[in-house]
Amino acid sequence: MLRTHRCGELSEANIGEEVELSGWVHRRRDHGGVIFIDLRDREGIVQVVVDPDTPEAFALADKVRSEYVIRVRGKVRRRPEGTENPAIPTGKIEVLAHELEILNRAETPPFPLDSEVPVSEEVRLRWRYLDLRRPEMQEKLRLRHRITQLLRRFLDAHGFLEIETPFLTKATPEGARDYLVPSRTHPHAFFALPQSPQLYKQLLMIAGFDRYYQVVRCFRDEDLRADRQPEFTQLDIETSFMDEHDIMALMEEMMRDLFQQVLEVELPNPFPRLTYAEAMRRFGSDKPDLRIPLELVDLGDVMAGVEFKVFAGPANDPNGRVAALRLPGGGDLSRKEIDDLTKFVSQYGAKGLAYVKVNDVAKGRDGLQSPILKFLPDAVIDAIVQRTGAEDGDIIFFGADKARVVNEALGALRVKLGQDRGLVEEGWRPLWVVEFPMFEWDEEEKRWVALHHPFTAPACSIEELKAYPGKAVSRAYDMVLNGVEVGGGSIRIHTPQMQQAVFELLGIGEEEAREKFGFLLDALKYGCPPHGGIAFGLDRLVMLMTGSKTIRDVMAFPKTQTAACPMVDAPARVNEQQLRELFLQLRKLPQQRAREKAENAS
Amino acid sequence: MLRTHRCGELSEANIGEEVELSGWVHRRRDHGGVIFIDLRDREGIVQVVVDPDTPEAFALADKVRSEYVIRVRGKVRRRPEGTENPAIPTGKIEVLAHELEILNRAETPPFPLDSEVPVSEEVRLRWRYLDLRRPEMQEKLRLRHRITQLLRRFLDAHGFLEIETPFLTKATPEGARDYLVPSRTHPHAFFALPQSPQLYKQLLMIAGFDRYYQVVRCFRDEDLRADRQPEFTQLDIETSFMDEHDIMALMEEMMRDLFQQVLEVELPNPFPRLTYAEAMRRFGSDKPDLRIPLELVDLGDVMAGVEFKVFAGPANDPNGRVAALRLPGGGDLSRKEIDDLTKFVSQYGAKGLAYVKVNDVAKGRDGLQSPILKFLPDAVIDAIVQRTGAEDGDIIFFGADKARVVNEALGALRVKLGQDRGLVEEGWRPLWVVEFPMFEWDEEEKRWVALHHPFTAPACSIEELKAYPGKAVSRAYDMVLNGVEVGGGSIRIHTPQMQQAVFELLGIGEEEAREKFGFLLDALKYGCPPHGGIAFGLDRLVMLMTGSKTIRDVMAFPKTQTAACPMVDAPARVNEQQLRELFLQLRKLPQQRAREKAENAS
Repeated sequence: MLRTHRCGELSEANIGEEVELSGWVHRRRDHGGVIFIDLRDREGIVQVVVDPDTPEAFALADKVRSEYVIRVRGKVRRRPEGTENPAIPTGKIEVLAHELEILNRAETPPFPLDSEVPVSEEVRLRWRYLDLRRPEMQEKLRLRHRITQLLRRFLDAHGFLEIETPFLTKATPEGARDYLVPSRTHPHAFFALPQSPQLYKQLLMIAGFDRYYQVVRCFRDEDLRADRQPEFTQLDIETSFMDEHDIMALMEEMMRDLFQQVLEVELPNPFPRLTYAEAMRRFGSDKPDLRIPLELVDLGDVMAGVEFKVFAGPANDPNGRVAALRLPGGGDLSRKEIDDLTKFVSQYGAKGLAYVKVNDVAKGRDGLQSPILKFLPDAVIDAIVQRTGAEDGDIIFFGADKARVVNEALGALRVKLGQDRGLVEEGWRPLWVVEFPMFEWDEEEKRWVALHHPFTAPACSIEELKAYPGKAVSRAYDMVLNGVEVGGGSIRIHTPQMQQAVFELLGIGEEEAREKFGFLLDALKYGCPPHGGIAFGLDRLVMLMTGSKTIRDVMAFPKTQTAACPMVDAPARVNEQQLRELFLQLRKLPQQRAREKAENAS
Repeated sequence: MLRTHRCGELSEANIGEEVELSGWVHRRRDHGGVIFIDLRDREGIVQVVVDPDTPEAFALADKVRSEYVIRVRGKVRRRPEGTENPAIPTGKIEVLAHELEILNRAETPPFPLDSEVPVSEEVRLRWRYLDLRRPEMQEKLRLRHRITQLLRRFLDAHGFLEIETPFLTKATPEGARDYLVPSRTHPHAFFALPQSPQLYKQLLMIAGFDRYYQVVRCFRDEDLRADRQPEFTQLDIETSFMDEHDIMALMEEMMRDLFQQVLEVELPNPFPRLTYAEAMRRFGSDKPDLRIPLELVDLGDVMAGVEFKVFAGPANDPNGRVAALRLPGGGDLSRKEIDDLTKFVSQYGAKGLAYVKVNDVAKGRDGLQSPILKFLPDAVIDAIVQRTGAEDGDIIFFGADKARVVNEALGALRVKLGQDRGLVEEGWRPLWVVEFPMFEWDEEEKRWVALHHPFTAPACSIEELKAYPGKAVSRAYDMVLNGVEVGGGSIRIHTPQMQQAVFELLGIGEEEAREKFGFLLDALKYGCPPHGGIAFGLDRLVMLMTGSKTIRDVMAFPKTQTAACPMVDAPARVNEQQLRELFLQLRKLPQQRAREKAENAS
């Protein structure tokens, strides 16, 4: 072994010991005829001193540069008084080396690893193996490992079996596009990479495994907006003979255990639960960030009678909503700032952003300031002030539109104001969102779509479901943490009759159902236990727990926003022979066609 | 929760307790006006008794059939004397149920689950979720889970970090065909599914992670012979600053630990090590099954001078080999049996199978019986008898051909005879095979090919490697267990100069090297630590440890021999829209072309 210790592990306890270390030269400097090397490995940095008394080692030390890989032998000693470095754990000691070996040289890295100079993500991903050397990235992936192992241990201890499911499988309808894999042995047929092991885990319950989990890669060929990746990792869980309350209780316990062990944080016991309806009403979102002390307030009833159409219209529309959001102390917002917020909510379809500034509550209408005041009778103004609990110096924003638009606009505004104004409270605020609707009506396609997936059980009978699909509530539950959906699951349908009924409501005909899910419908006939489960987004959870800004920072080798890897240069062209073996050929691209057309015409 | 206990967990300790159980009806029978139900769950089977005193439960019990899912409440009691069932762990007790609920019904399964009747694999895979209900399959997957977790714990305890590497990546040259994944966002470009994370784990060492592991799926689009699967699982390991001896020692320890904990078996400490040359010489194989007490014996030197060309030719060919394999007691083999063995070795290219039966050693030539005796002088016959240690009643087989043919033929014959004749000893016989050649000469392509992969470090300098590529030995090591290669690894090349030299020897030009492995060559320049690793075939290891005959039996949802899944019906056709999005079109199959041609001609 090329070492006796790791660099960062040394401490005053090792003083006087002869040690051998291997690692990277983090920094090297000459000082008073002596060479100082900050030697780095996974565990940290230690100062190595080489002096001219050991001429061979000194000559080599003179040659080393940043990121050289070296091995040294030497004695641990206390640093001379006044030269300690309290910034690093090994700061009280140093190693006086008498032997040094250059294990490998290094060219100057394309960006410095020992400074805080910001580097573009493109460059970081191109030379990811260097980016990952930075202690910050080392720490994130190490914590990811620890989190994964702790989750596994909890599940092991609770009788869950980790069972691997196939990656070369059949398209399933998780809503996104599948990655396809052409088969060579079955020409013109394709596998799909799984968007999740949903049906396999249900089959494992039907197979009697009782409790299953898997830390598993999932694939979605989506247009990468925000913080998505074509491949991501799920902690996938399924269990038989438990209802939603049992499952939520156990999953909470797992999270409390995890946060306790990793962050020494006590999460609430139990987690608060909000119905979907309440979450939308109070926060305009089904993944509310409870750290933000702002809430939406309904004004539909008071606005229903006003003459001001902007409010009266949505107030009288069964699909409309009129709501207010009070920002304490927001009276100081400038015209320009309010304009920017108006632009912000317009992204969510809001046609404007009405507001009222509260100068002096005691003065009633005269203490308020707003272009819309003149449209509102006193009683309405009183109701607004009272319901929002407005105080002097506040601003109240209004949303009035289709409920969906109001929720999205004010929900997003709530988060933005919370962040911009520094209102986000410290700490961790998990909750469960429950009682989701089974279906949403798609106005464009004129049909019901599943809010979760089509295997989610409703909390009602087949008859009720068919009679009032719009009112049916599902047995689904989402775990939300600080405004991020970290997990989602449900009790599943376990009879072929109910599964068939849901397929029918979703417009999946008998033939299509048989073609796509025949194996599931069959399996449900042979003694399927009541079962349910949940899946956690491991990347998101680790992102939150490590305080990272994107999931890319907690993945060793993520893809760019265009689903490519600049490091290995994937995806890449393949040769004609490979395509022939798969009985495929490339189709001309639109630009190729256009060029050919132009050439033919000339 | 729909139960207080699992069925198989109940014992005499629970007598008198009120319990609730949920599970599957394994068998149901009426007997003396009472209904007996063998109720099954993951933990085992317990007998439930329902009598007419609880008429509601009794009426329901009367309706249940095999594989119904039911819940029962009742009291645990001791079985009446004489009715105990010593065959099952719960055989001393039964549950007198007073409440019964049918949770789900079941149609009659396509094959019985409660009997030992053999079922074809095609049927088992088609209804895999039923096949997996069989206690034997439950046990295998449960043990797989346990083995995986124990390996993880060992590695965790030794400072290895589990780090996930991408599945959507670039083609790497593991020797097999890649599965390709067309990219939608980069038209006409393809990802490859990894045949192993080889290069990523090396990059993780360059990134300074020091010790990495991953339980990871790998993909090979091979023609499925014998016991291969298109996707399989590897325990993938890499470490920095350790040499081959450190790595082998640690991996041995891991295996000893595993076998101790799972099977209560003590594996040898240390594992024996054989050089590749010795393994080939003694066993004709680089994965010898040491449980078989038969060895090959070289006869090249004694045969070099005989007139019999069949032996003299290969004996005088530097690439030839003449060897003998003695089967103790094999003198009883019939002419027909020997003919069958001759056919068997012909699969490996052997042109015949010469033999000598040993009737009476003391009589010399006259005590032997063989069609080839007449071609061999006395001195040679004496040498054969002496070297093989022949005794009365034995048979000696001969191989004389290119060394490769002799090794394959006699190596396979050794294993076959060992198995057919019941000579395979009990127990576990692990070993390391080391000192593999770096390269083999490919006669057809007239070029060197790597025996392992092109990132394997040689045990010599660049100069020696270039001067004598055929003599160069690699720093690779294979772990072999009972004739199965369960793991293989090596110390890797860690300088760009050596990597370039190996690429050149393999005929990979500078341009090709840059295109395929530019990122690795770059990475080696920026301070790559000395590193090495190993990968274990998890499926194979679990197969051995569970005493299974194929890896399919230790995978939840394996593919058939034609790389398909009859259960979900994958791979499957996709629609035109999906192909258009990927800028692909199907190429006509040969049979389609032929038909069209015929139609046009007519």
